[in-house]
Amino acid sequence: MLKEKDKKIYVVGHKNPDTDCICAPIAYAFFLKKKGKNAIPVRTGEINPETKFVLNYFKVKIPEILKNAAGKKIILIDHNEKEQSPTHIEKAEILEVIDHHKISFSWPQALYFLTEPLGAASTIIAKKFFQEKVKIPRKIAGILLSAILSDTVVFRSPTTTKEDIKAAKKLAKIAKIKNLEEFGIEIKKKKAVLKGQTSENIIFSDFKIFDFSGKKVGIGQVEVCDLKEVNERKEELIERLKEICRRENYNLLLFIATDIIKKSSQLLGTGEINYLEKAFGKKVVENSIYLPGVMSRKKQIVPPLMKVFQGS
Amino acid sequence: MLKEKDKKIYVVGHKNPDTDCICAPIAYAFFLKKKGKNAIPVRTGEINPETKFVLNYFKVKIPEILKNAAGKKIILIDHNEKEQSPTHIEKAEILEVIDHHKISFSWPQALYFLTEPLGAASTIIAKKFFQEKVKIPRKIAGILLSAILSDTVVFRSPTTTKEDIKAAKKLAKIAKIKNLEEFGIEIKKKKAVLKGQTSENIIFSDFKIFDFSGKKVGIGQVEVCDLKEVNERKEELIERLKEICRRENYNLLLFIATDIIKKSSQLLGTGEINYLEKAFGKKVVENSIYLPGVMSRKKQIVPPLMKVFQGS
Repeated sequence: MLKEKDKKIYVVGHKNPDTDCICAPIAYAFFLKKKGKNAIPVRTGEINPETKFVLNYFKVKIPEILKNAAGKKIILIDHNEKEQSPTHIEKAEILEVIDHHKISFSWPQALYFLTEPLGAASTIIAKKFFQEKVKIPRKIAGILLSAILSDTVVFRSPTTTKEDIKAAKKLAKIAKIKNLEEFGIEIKKKKAVLKGQTSENIIFSDFKIFDFSGKKVGIGQVEVCDLKEVNERKEELIERLKEICRRENYNLLLFIATDIIKKSSQLLGTGEINYLEKAFGKKVVENSIYLPGVMSRKKQIVPPLMKVFQGS
Repeated sequence: MLKEKDKKIYVVGHKNPDTDCICAPIAYAFFLKKKGKNAIPVRTGEINPETKFVLNYFKVKIPEILKNAAGKKIILIDHNEKEQSPTHIEKAEILEVIDHHKISFSWPQALYFLTEPLGAASTIIAKKFFQEKVKIPRKIAGILLSAILSDTVVFRSPTTTKEDIKAAKKLAKIAKIKNLEEFGIEIKKKKAVLKGQTSENIIFSDFKIFDFSGKKVGIGQVEVCDLKEVNERKEELIERLKEICRRENYNLLLFIATDIIKKSSQLLGTGEINYLEKAFGKKVVENSIYLPGVMSRKKQIVPPLMKVFQGS
């Protein structure tokens, strides 16, 4: 019979996995194994082309899928809200939580729960290796570094902190990655490809709905390495936006294509675009505004929009 | 004008402060000051005789009272549930949370939040000093040690972990406390005094009401260093229990006096005491049962009682 202490501990990220929430669990399970724990990394769903590239680059195996958390010992990484956890998390035994998002969590007993306001969950895991002086093999350093570069959009996201950059530099030395900027963009390019996707899929790939003073506003966003990709399909995207706007009764429907190299965004909009003009102080030409220096929907698009809707 | 970074950071424990939630904030504010932060420890209410003894012993000033958290930068220690926080915590800016209790918390953005399943919040704070190699002055080591001894009932509580004992031993060296057992009992004795209190105050000083399968059960508990104190007033306490039981319609009303030296409890009960006999397999004589080895209401009294009520 298995002893309680020998029971497997599953280390898992959130649903719709990205690179950070695949790589951080792999690295943390490795860390726990070094501490004598029977930990294995798992995932909740299909990995994206960016993550596939990273794991392949550092020759790391793709984790198994965990279909059902019921009755298992679980460590949650890169999320704490149970809606984002594997199925039946309420019937699991949560041992630990390590995350860098806002908190909405309850648990009937004390457990190890750590969140830090950093750019990537992988930065927190890297700090654990450094603090406890656990040696990091090249491939583990490589995937942690990749996850930090991915989650901070190669240090361009406003969520990036000094600690993320410091950890990335230390990891880069171990992983023998000389040019962080170049390597980071190479990673982001794997995901930032619109080719072969329908315009509806592109618009809804990362989409949020807001209620601004009673008005229904939808905002989709993609990251690209060159706005050309979007501009070539601009008319098609605008047509589709208009159709969705009518079909789903939006007051304003926006699509942001963010150029992570030039740190700027091309904004396409339909509906009550006068709000758009007020919010950004620019004329909308052919349903389009170019916003230099704007990258973050959360920090740079939503607040000025919310303000003009409130003032109207 | 004060810059944002110069604004005071208030480090505060829970309402009805005990020794851990006064000493851990004092030590953590000291730690943060060493890191260049403008942190000060505060408290939410009157300190008990045990805490007064500890602060006096190590010549540490009693923190100021924080009456209103609105608009302030706050670090919560030794609790995370907002009901236990200072008034208007919902209008404060919570910067960090460090705790060792069950979790029920939400916050709209990422912050530093750390809970660990350890015997005292002060153990977590002590680990921070050790990890980051911040030198601990004798008086800070002394109050952290005292808080660990207090919260773990001198390592007797089932919540005690190896890490609490390890941290306490390291702190004892710095604080020049040679005999942990002796010093711990000296601390606990300051609080564990029933003299001068009415029997009603004693019964309700730490009192919890339970619903066991539709039956109303009340359980009060005190810690003493010698059961003599209780036995001398046994008749008076039983009379008072009977009166409260009638007045407030309890099905079963219990009072536990726990001898922290002998690690045993004297249980006084009124109402449907047949449940008591079933739960502990002993005859109740003169409304009283002696339970060797039993110290924890949560872990050793409530579960067997709940079981017999369910089975009835």
